[in-house]
Amino acid sequence: MIGQKGFRVVKPEIRVLGIDDGKFIPHTQGTAIVVGVVFRGGYWIDGVMHTRISIDGLDATEQLASMINNSPHRKQLRLVMLNGITFAGFNIVDIKELHLSTKLPVMALTRDKPDLEAIRQALKNLPNTDERWRMALEAGEIYKVSCKGSANYVELAGISLADAQKIMKLTSTRSCFPEPLRVAHLIASGITP
Amino acid sequence: MIGQKGFRVVKPEIRVLGIDDGKFIPHTQGTAIVVGVVFRGGYWIDGVMHTRISIDGLDATEQLASMINNSPHRKQLRLVMLNGITFAGFNIVDIKELHLSTKLPVMALTRDKPDLEAIRQALKNLPNTDERWRMALEAGEIYKVSCKGSANYVELAGISLADAQKIMKLTSTRSCFPEPLRVAHLIASGITP
Repeated sequence: MIGQKGFRVVKPEIRVLGIDDGKFIPHTQGTAIVVGVVFRGGYWIDGVMHTRISIDGLDATEQLASMINNSPHRKQLRLVMLNGITFAGFNIVDIKELHLSTKLPVMALTRDKPDLEAIRQALKNLPNTDERWRMALEAGEIYKVSCKGSANYVELAGISLADAQKIMKLTSTRSCFPEPLRVAHLIASGITP
Repeated sequence: MIGQKGFRVVKPEIRVLGIDDGKFIPHTQGTAIVVGVVFRGGYWIDGVMHTRISIDGLDATEQLASMINNSPHRKQLRLVMLNGITFAGFNIVDIKELHLSTKLPVMALTRDKPDLEAIRQALKNLPNTDERWRMALEAGEIYKVSCKGSANYVELAGISLADAQKIMKLTSTRSCFPEPLRVAHLIASGITP
């Protein structure tokens, strides 16, 4: 694994990219929009980017890597935060692969604990079941991170749990959820029908 | 005119809607996306909404009013900020009419002083020249508002210049431009090709 050398220090204005998908009609052909928001620490928005991925497809990892690597913000970015590992239905992000192809640490956060058994069952109804299941497992251990009585669940690639916790704390300015992801969700859902 | 009773007090967490349009191909048929961002004062994003308007069309005022009046955020909103009065080319917003139909004060801001003579010349190449020109003039007096050596230009409907200046100062947290408009611009341009 590259990049897990740890953050020497987490700067208060660290540039974090938060990523979430927009609304779409499930089980249809076509694409869903995915929005990335560049936050400077937990307060300021520096930029917004987007890409499209296939509904229930297999291209999420590749499209996200391409969006990030081609962005004018790439050089400033220090971390990628995903709202979970499944986008546009069951288009699963391989967070280890995303970490390798962007050379950035990646963390996937959810408010609810990912239910792997439910995912495994749902994947049986889709083509490429084994490949998707491998990606879901690749995300590795699921850590619980508490915050004022509530909890988030995180999966990590290229970053230690200690550093991930520091960055979550720094960016969770408005609530117990990091601003880059809270705002990516508001934007992605607000611009889709 | 309704609503120009003035703000008894401008609360630090006043809900302001900032509106800007996305990228589009000029002089084509079709529509452009327009994004609205609900800010709580100058710091927190409470929500995002969108609508579509015709490129060089005449429906901007009506579509914005409909987006605002149908939003779940409507009751919390106290002010609408527009990034200028022309959207999607020369689809001009009649800010007095928008004020009347939403019952909210409206302010249109630009960093450069609106060049009315250039607008008048450009409108000659479009249908409904007179109607568009009337809407441009309806926006009324253009005020210069200075901030740390730079300046913004504002046109107002349903709000006094003194109140407009207070709200601009309160919401210009990151730069000399109000956050609701700075962020509406980043989102609208970041989600369009």
